[in-house]
Amino acid sequence: MRNLDQHTITQEAIDRLADTPDPRVREVLTSLIRHLHDFARDVNLTEDEWARGIAFLTATGQKCDDKRQEFILLSDVLGLSMLTVAMNNAKPPECTEATVFGPFFVDGAPHYENGDDVANGASGEPCEVIGSIRALDGRPVAGARIDVWQADAQGLYDVQRDDLDTAQGRGVLHADDAGMYHFHTVLAEAYPIPTDGPVGELLAATARHPWRPAHLHFRIEAPGYETLVTHVFREDDQWLDSDAVFGVRQSLIAPWVRREDGSYALHYDFVLNPVAKG
Amino acid sequence: MRNLDQHTITQEAIDRLADTPDPRVREVLTSLIRHLHDFARDVNLTEDEWARGIAFLTATGQKCDDKRQEFILLSDVLGLSMLTVAMNNAKPPECTEATVFGPFFVDGAPHYENGDDVANGASGEPCEVIGSIRALDGRPVAGARIDVWQADAQGLYDVQRDDLDTAQGRGVLHADDAGMYHFHTVLAEAYPIPTDGPVGELLAATARHPWRPAHLHFRIEAPGYETLVTHVFREDDQWLDSDAVFGVRQSLIAPWVRREDGSYALHYDFVLNPVAKG
Ligand SMILES: [Fe+2]
Ligand SMILES: [Fe+2]
Repeated sequence: MRNLDQHTITQEAIDRLADTPDPRVREVLTSLIRHLHDFARDVNLTEDEWARGIAFLTATGQKCDDKRQEFILLSDVLGLSMLTVAMNNAKPPECTEATVFGPFFVDGAPHYENGDDVANGASGEPCEVIGSIRALDGRPVAGARIDVWQADAQGLYDVQRDDLDTAQGRGVLHADDAGMYHFHTVLAEAYPIPTDGPVGELLAATARHPWRPAHLHFRIEAPGYETLVTHVFREDDQWLDSDAVFGVRQSLIAPWVRREDGSYALHYDFVLNPVAKG
Repeated sequence: MRNLDQHTITQEAIDRLADTPDPRVREVLTSLIRHLHDFARDVNLTEDEWARGIAFLTATGQKCDDKRQEFILLSDVLGLSMLTVAMNNAKPPECTEATVFGPFFVDGAPHYENGDDVANGASGEPCEVIGSIRALDGRPVAGARIDVWQADAQGLYDVQRDDLDTAQGRGVLHADDAGMYHFHTVLAEAYPIPTDGPVGELLAATARHPWRPAHLHFRIEAPGYETLVTHVFREDDQWLDSDAVFGVRQSLIAPWVRREDGSYALHYDFVLNPVAKG
C-alpha cells in the first residue's frame, strides 16, 4: 500500500470497498473503478489531460441549474443515455419503443384537457395531435397520464428562453375513457442541442454536428404498466440518420400531415408494456 | 443508426468521432466511450442508477468553487489521481518520487524568504523545516521555486476556513545558492478529507474512512528539471497504510523530530529529474 504503481492501485482501490454495506453499490463501484483505471492506462493519460478532464467535468456541473442539465446532455452525446434506455426497455415488439429522456423535461408542467392547446404561445405552425394509449391486448388504458414537451419554431424549449417564465409547448394530459388523447400544439422542428457549454465544446472538438431530428417528447404513466419515455420523430427529417444523441427508432417515426389550411396533424398510437408480475 | 441496441451503439458513437481534427483527442474519446459503455453493460446499469449517477456528478461539479475542487477529490478517492501520477512520473530511483496534487493548492501564495514562518498564524506546534534541492549528480539546484502548503492543527487548510481571508500554512520560497531551503511552520497532522460534499457521501456509502496521514505538500520547479509535485509524510502516522487517496510512498516518509523545547524539526532533501532531451 505504500508503493502502489499504476497496476497495483486498481486492486487496492477495489479492496477499499470491502465493507460497503449495499452489495449493489459495491458491484457498481468495483466495475466503475476497473473501467476508469483501464481507460487511463489504455490511453496513457497525461497529467495535463487529467487536469483538462477535471476542468471539463467541473464546468459541466457548473453549467447545470434548475433549467439546464449539462450532464444529461453529456451522457446523451456519448451514447450512454441511449445505451441505458436500450438495456432497460426490452419488451414485446408490439409495444411502443422507448428513447432518451433528454435534459428538457420539467416536473409540474401545466395540466390541460383533451382538445386544449399546449403551445400556450410557443412559435410555430399549428399542429393537432391525436392518438390512443392501449395495452398489448388492444384495450384502452383509460386515464393514462401523458406528459408532452417540445421545442418551438426557433428550436428552443421554453426553459431555454430567458425571456419566458411560463410553460410553453409542454403540458400534462390524461387519456379519456376510450384511451384517446388529443391536443393542439405547434409543428415539431429539428433543433441543435445547446452548444454554449462544455458539451458544445466537445462537439466542436470532435467536428460533430449538434442537430436532433424534429420530435415530440412523451412520457406516459399508468398503474400496472411500465412508464414509457419516448419521442415521436418526424418523417423525412434530414437528421434521422445522425441524431446527435443516438435516439432514433424506426418504429417511432411518423408523418406530420400537412392540411389544406397549412396546419399539420399527427396521429400516433402508443402501446404500453404491463409491469412484470413480481 | 435508426435501431441501435446496447451493443451496436458503441461503435456508432465511436464512428461519430471520425472527423475529429486532433488524433489524440480522437484516441482518448474513443477509449473513453468504449470503457464507459462497457461499464454500463457490465453492471446492467438501471435507469434509476443512471439518474443517480447524473445527480452525483452534477452535485460534485456544483460543490466546486474557487476554494474547493470536489472533482479532484473524487479522482483522488477513486485512485485515478495516483494512477495518473504513477504513469507519468517514472524516473531514476535516486529521484524524489511524486504523489497526488490534491485539491488544496492555491496559485499565488505569498512569497517568503528562507527562514521565514509560513504558518502566518496557523494553529499547531512550531516546526522548522530544512533541506536541499539537488540534481541527480548531487549539484545544488540554486533558485528552485518551492511551493509548500499544509493543514493546521485542526486538520484544515486555510482555504477550508470561512473565517479566514489570508493565506496560512502556505507559501512560495526559493532555494539559495547552495540549493538549500529553510522555513518555519506548524507540525503536520493527520486530517480527514472534506466529507461535507458528494465525495463524503461516497465514502459513507462504502464505509471508507476519510483520513490522510500527516503530510506536507511540496511543488518544486526549476528550469531544466521536471516539476516535482509531492508530499513528505510523517513517520509512524496511523493512516500510512490506508491513506484515503492512495498517495503514500515509502521513500516520502520521514521523521518529524521532537526537540527538547517541544518544537519539531523536519529535514528532507529533494532530488529532481532532468527534463528529457527532446
Ligand atoms: Fe427534445
Ligand atoms: Fe494534503
